[in-house]
Amino acid sequence: MTAIRVPALNERVIARVRSRQDSLTKPRGSLGRLEDLASRLAAITGCLDPPLKNRVLFLLAGDHGVAAEGVSAYPTEVTAQMVRNFRNGGAAANVLARQLGVRVEVADFGVGQGTRSFTEGPAMGVSQARRAIRRGRELVRGQRIAGLDVVLTGEMGIGNSTSAAALTCALTGVQPKLAVGRGTGVGEAGLRRKRAVVRRGLEVNRESLHDPLQVLAALGGFEIAGLVGVILEGARLRKPVLLDGFIASAAALVAVQLNPESAGCLIAAHRSAERGHRLVLEALGLKPLLDLEMRLGEGTGALLALPLLEASIRLLNEMATFEEAAVANRLADG
Amino acid sequence: MTAIRVPALNERVIARVRSRQDSLTKPRGSLGRLEDLASRLAAITGCLDPPLKNRVLFLLAGDHGVAAEGVSAYPTEVTAQMVRNFRNGGAAANVLARQLGVRVEVADFGVGQGTRSFTEGPAMGVSQARRAIRRGRELVRGQRIAGLDVVLTGEMGIGNSTSAAALTCALTGVQPKLAVGRGTGVGEAGLRRKRAVVRRGLEVNRESLHDPLQVLAALGGFEIAGLVGVILEGARLRKPVLLDGFIASAAALVAVQLNPESAGCLIAAHRSAERGHRLVLEALGLKPLLDLEMRLGEGTGALLALPLLEASIRLLNEMATFEEAAVANRLADG
Repeated sequence: MTAIRVPALNERVIARVRSRQDSLTKPRGSLGRLEDLASRLAAITGCLDPPLKNRVLFLLAGDHGVAAEGVSAYPTEVTAQMVRNFRNGGAAANVLARQLGVRVEVADFGVGQGTRSFTEGPAMGVSQARRAIRRGRELVRGQRIAGLDVVLTGEMGIGNSTSAAALTCALTGVQPKLAVGRGTGVGEAGLRRKRAVVRRGLEVNRESLHDPLQVLAALGGFEIAGLVGVILEGARLRKPVLLDGFIASAAALVAVQLNPESAGCLIAAHRSAERGHRLVLEALGLKPLLDLEMRLGEGTGALLALPLLEASIRLLNEMATFEEAAVANRLADG
Repeated sequence: MTAIRVPALNERVIARVRSRQDSLTKPRGSLGRLEDLASRLAAITGCLDPPLKNRVLFLLAGDHGVAAEGVSAYPTEVTAQMVRNFRNGGAAANVLARQLGVRVEVADFGVGQGTRSFTEGPAMGVSQARRAIRRGRELVRGQRIAGLDVVLTGEMGIGNSTSAAALTCALTGVQPKLAVGRGTGVGEAGLRRKRAVVRRGLEVNRESLHDPLQVLAALGGFEIAGLVGVILEGARLRKPVLLDGFIASAAALVAVQLNPESAGCLIAAHRSAERGHRLVLEALGLKPLLDLEMRLGEGTGALLALPLLEASIRLLNEMATFEEAAVANRLADG
């Protein structure tokens, strides 16, 4: 994995952004986080007016052996049924993608042929994890022909919030109690089962949790491994990578441990209502743009943040300066 | 003012929204606040698929006598200069309005001919306040010809965060220390002056703070009074009224005290970084959709929330149901 070279952020461009922002007809800093967002987008792309027109949601679906342990409120067949729903344009992610002008690439990462349950050993082999990462990278490269300016991450997979919780525990050291949430909405009994399953997974696989790739293979899902590849390739191409919720962010945690340079390209779109998401965002050092108590996945949170990215760059480039508009600037003693 | 009749929210439609939301291909409640937002929009308009296409930002500008007391980081001329900037399309609000397809109605509510300083008596007469409210209402009615689905509130006026703070204190009973913030960015000395000015205004006008109209006349600005009219008329027409930041929300506080029924049409777009805004939103019982540490006004916060309104209604109407998509619903014991 160390073979993936991610270029460093363009720090020089940030000073140019700041200087322009302070010349625009508004009190200094008054656009708040939109000013930081514009700086970040400029640093990622090396450009004050990066194109944001071609946005692609990489919507990866996979099944999880661990779903058989009763950790989800929905039956396993739902993964395949939702993939059909994505292809027919009926899911939440499709609706938002149409609204916001986003192409959706739905990809099958083991739907119906999912991972083994990590309660009985590694969910997949290390070579399978490598292959899924490679496929994720290829998906991103494949979209460059039609144009690719922003990478959005999305996923679907019954059982995958259990996998993401286990990954979070293994990669950050937090206890299952803090990382396991209700996912699609399990009740109290389901939540207890889910915690026990994660504890068992960490225990059973403890000998193979020494490096991030091993952790991914032991506890991940194929679609999560695919998202690791999507994130790494997005970062390698210096594209902004919009993280969705808990599962996509757990994939980012793996990506950043495999390649710390990739962290600079990540933008946390929202904070999910799923319990562990807050911990993962803290571990990534990211502050989410939105907090709408959503917990759907599919990339829905990532999609909703797009207009903010666009706003931040338009404001930077289209607003008049104090000089152009002949507006008096701040008083000397103000 | 009691002559303005605001129809009650259509509560029956909410049950229909909830029932449809629970039939859509997503875990129940997983769209979080977007589900509440769709309910609210349906209850306001009486319709599950309300049009949101014609959005108008009412951007009202006015000068404030209190600006002479050194409460702003910018000189008074900036109000007029910014109005010209609005008309030339160079301000932040213009940039966002272009991005989001919003018409901007810029209106002069005493630019250059502002209120008296409320430290020396009422800022305006009660009849002037009434007239400004009436003009605000007329602006909204005037936009109905071209089409009006969503009302956005915006303002500009050097000194108006001092006026909004005084209104907040008078209408909610909080102390100036809690309601006064840095506005466009005054330093420590400016902040102390601002607090003292608000205390003096409340003291000098204490005999005329008995009803909301008197409070508005004593401590308000013409553009704030105009926004009261915009809000009341928007509510009367059962249009969603998107509140911007501290100043627009202070106007909403007056509107709701004049006519409690208008509260149902209000949507808090964002929480501004300005100190008192949190208090005003609490008093209005509103939870903001965005929190991006912005403090610019002009309607910029209101504009940024528009894609969320649109998303909530599209999701409600365009997503496939479990039945349509042949997706298995929740397990009985899930």
